[in-house]
Amino acid sequence: MPDIIERGIQDVIHDILSDYEKGRSIDKLDMFRQPDRQVVTELTEKLFRIVFPGFFKDKSYRIYHAKNSLPLVMEDVAYLLNKQITVALRYNLKPGQGDEDIDRRAEHITLEFLRGIPTIRDFIETDVQTTMDGDPAANSEDEIISSYPGIHAITVHRLAHALLGLGVPVLPRIMSEYAHSRTGIDIHPGAKIGKFFFIDHGTGIVIGETTTIGDHVKIYQGVTLGALSTKGGRHLKNQKRHPTIEDHVTIYSGASILGGNTVIGKGAVIGGNAFVTKSVAPFTHISVKNQELRYDRKKNVVNKTDIEEDGDWFYMI
Amino acid sequence: MPDIIERGIQDVIHDILSDYEKGRSIDKLDMFRQPDRQVVTELTEKLFRIVFPGFFKDKSYRIYHAKNSLPLVMEDVAYLLNKQITVALRYNLKPGQGDEDIDRRAEHITLEFLRGIPTIRDFIETDVQTTMDGDPAANSEDEIISSYPGIHAITVHRLAHALLGLGVPVLPRIMSEYAHSRTGIDIHPGAKIGKFFFIDHGTGIVIGETTTIGDHVKIYQGVTLGALSTKGGRHLKNQKRHPTIEDHVTIYSGASILGGNTVIGKGAVIGGNAFVTKSVAPFTHISVKNQELRYDRKKNVVNKTDIEEDGDWFYMI
Amino acid sequence: MPDIIERGIQDVIHDILSDYEKGRSIDKLDMFRQPDRQVVTELTEKLFRIVFPGFFKDKSYRIYHAKNSLPLVMEDVAYLLNKQITVALRYNLKPGQGDEDIDRRAEHITLEFLRGIPTIRDFIETDVQTTMDGDPAANSEDEIISSYPGIHAITVHRLAHALLGLGVPVLPRIMSEYAHSRTGIDIHPGAKIGKFFFIDHGTGIVIGETTTIGDHVKIYQGVTLGALSTKGGRHLKNQKRHPTIEDHVTIYSGASILGGNTVIGKGAVIGGNAFVTKSVAPFTHISVKNQELRYDRKKNVVNKTDIEEDGDWFYMI
Repeated sequence: MPDIIERGIQDVIHDILSDYEKGRSIDKLDMFRQPDRQVVTELTEKLFRIVFPGFFKDKSYRIYHAKNSLPLVMEDVAYLLNKQITVALRYNLKPGQGDEDIDRRAEHITLEFLRGIPTIRDFIETDVQTTMDGDPAANSEDEIISSYPGIHAITVHRLAHALLGLGVPVLPRIMSEYAHSRTGIDIHPGAKIGKFFFIDHGTGIVIGETTTIGDHVKIYQGVTLGALSTKGGRHLKNQKRHPTIEDHVTIYSGASILGGNTVIGKGAVIGGNAFVTKSVAPFTHISVKNQELRYDRKKNVVNKTDIEEDGDWFYMI
Repeated sequence: MPDIIERGIQDVIHDILSDYEKGRSIDKLDMFRQPDRQVVTELTEKLFRIVFPGFFKDKSYRIYHAKNSLPLVMEDVAYLLNKQITVALRYNLKPGQGDEDIDRRAEHITLEFLRGIPTIRDFIETDVQTTMDGDPAANSEDEIISSYPGIHAITVHRLAHALLGLGVPVLPRIMSEYAHSRTGIDIHPGAKIGKFFFIDHGTGIVIGETTTIGDHVKIYQGVTLGALSTKGGRHLKNQKRHPTIEDHVTIYSGASILGGNTVIGKGAVIGGNAFVTKSVAPFTHISVKNQELRYDRKKNVVNKTDIEEDGDWFYMI
Repeated sequence: MPDIIERGIQDVIHDILSDYEKGRSIDKLDMFRQPDRQVVTELTEKLFRIVFPGFFKDKSYRIYHAKNSLPLVMEDVAYLLNKQITVALRYNLKPGQGDEDIDRRAEHITLEFLRGIPTIRDFIETDVQTTMDGDPAANSEDEIISSYPGIHAITVHRLAHALLGLGVPVLPRIMSEYAHSRTGIDIHPGAKIGKFFFIDHGTGIVIGETTTIGDHVKIYQGVTLGALSTKGGRHLKNQKRHPTIEDHVTIYSGASILGGNTVIGKGAVIGGNAFVTKSVAPFTHISVKNQELRYDRKKNVVNKTDIEEDGDWFYMI
């Protein structure tokens, strides 16, 4: 390293250490007091090994038959999960609760969560089946499990939602943001989602915290299930702000369905780009009335250069 | 690990092992029978080293001159690719075909694919050039190669499409979903895409399996080239469901072009957010007629607090 | 490796080495002449450890108290940054400038950038605060720092923007594309963004190079702050092509605001999906007039099968 930098960074280090003294939310220094995003990511990946045993290898285990490696993976998961839950539970510490209470609760929650995995796998199998039935581009269930972002996102969601249901703060959201980062699908861990859930493509989907979704629901890319207003900010906390979607509803790409009182009835179909802020009766099909399009035809165009040089056209990005 | 967890997970392990016996699509246990997403990702990254020799290093190779490290990288790629193709080909095993047939075909495909790399590089060079010409924010071709998500996505697509053309199942889709995950650009490996392809920004782009795209086509963020209906589910398999885009077409952000019979003629320009389900004549410019906007002006507002407290406005997310 | 492949790849290697001789933009071979995306990614992650000391661990450092590990992290960052800046500066080499000039400038810039970190942290603290105030789903500032993609994107942006301001090419764009890849939020490092910036959800957001954004601005998923036309291609370089957003503006999901002369006045609210190409007066609220929706109600539907079999409905994806 050049001398000038070697000397210069001593001052920088000093200034940043002083900066850390300001007591702001970004100035926390003890790494064992905040959950570790990297560990939670690792944990989530190991959970995929348990949920889909033959599909996700891990080179740190030498054993490659899923059945034989399960005890090793399970030990790792239990250990990491218990530690992270312990850290997370401190956020909701009530007066009088000591570290020992926290330790006991973390152990209890860790076991309860792991016990729930077969039930979660039951749900995920329905998601794989419905994807296979619904997507003409799918060639096999193995392809779906190995590569479909919708299956990745709903798997992480079902795990994160279970953890949230057991009263764990922060961790579920880190898990769901890991899935969001990988898939572009943003499902808040609080959302309730039924069986046979099918997401196609998925990028840009947003499903808010208080959304309720029934069975056999299909959602395409760019769909928002959101709040009608966030003007109230933190005062809206714990209110039902996001819609209810009943069984057998299909929501095509780019549609927005907003508001805590909005109910999309059983069997309804919401067309692409529809903007819905009121309830929709069961078995109704909503589509946007034909968009008015303007057509301008260029006469006597013979090649690309003519197009590029035409200054009158209105281009937009 | 706390004793209570140590003991408790023995039962959990037992229950999950029983759960694995149910014979569902998620219950496959032999890791060497399914393609390995992690290996396919690694493979794709190594292919980037071959396609863009001076741009993507890999610390596991000590040699840093691209020319000298090529033989090493190539050996690794050939080895991993051959193994993964072998696994993948078993999906399409025909009656009477044995493991040896598979082995021979995998070797043949591996070599054919690698032989095609110079041709693929020819196409990718055209993509880099057209991005340099079309994007006022680009400063150098090196910047484009090092950082542009559009180049990442089209590079993976050209590789995955070649592999699919050689009859390899599953693998190409895992590759394209790797690109989707990194860039938000979802191109099915089946799509046919000409030279000089330019993607700007890219997040939210969906290009379906049976799409055909000519040369010199530009596509912006949020564009869908999709199917008009997926109601038929698996019965639509192998039908042309996605549009045809001819040479020199530009499609601005958020536009949707849907349907297997929809042809966007040479030199056409599709404006932002247009929703197109019918063919468009060559050299036509389509734009959405002016959206009707409602303007509400708040009188006597002097500061932020006044805005926040005004209960009459309609906010939406 | 099978013999047939072993022999076959020798020819492939030979062909690809010839292909590298063609002198195109993709044929650069010296890895130390192009910035290293992997190193820049690593660097960005280490910068997160400095900005949020207690939140992002790194197993390669054994010390886990942020204060004690800062000198180690800082040394690594300074070393890597200095090297990458040196490589990047060669892009803008002026006639007469030698390698030594470059070395001196790189050292100067490295130190200047590091000295600016406390100022950048001041800005980021305001972003965390405003997210906490504005999002009813947020439970704690720690949750926001650990998991919110908006905070990730704006943190990387503030770092990349500072580097760009010091005259470093290429590197800032690689950093911003790293954030884009992780979050789906695409902010060009050239954009100027004030304090208290709040991004919700974020996937699909595009903020162009010459955008200016004031303080207390909120932006939701799918918003584009873009150019009205890119028809001019490279001729538009260095022109103001993207809008100006004044203080206290809120822009809801899916809205597009386009053009270098477009100014969104103080306190304005832009409704979801609005398409805005002209300036908006301060304290104005714009919303899209009610979309015309078509409702079709299916009579006598009793179960899902009836819906699926009804051939008259128009479905779209």
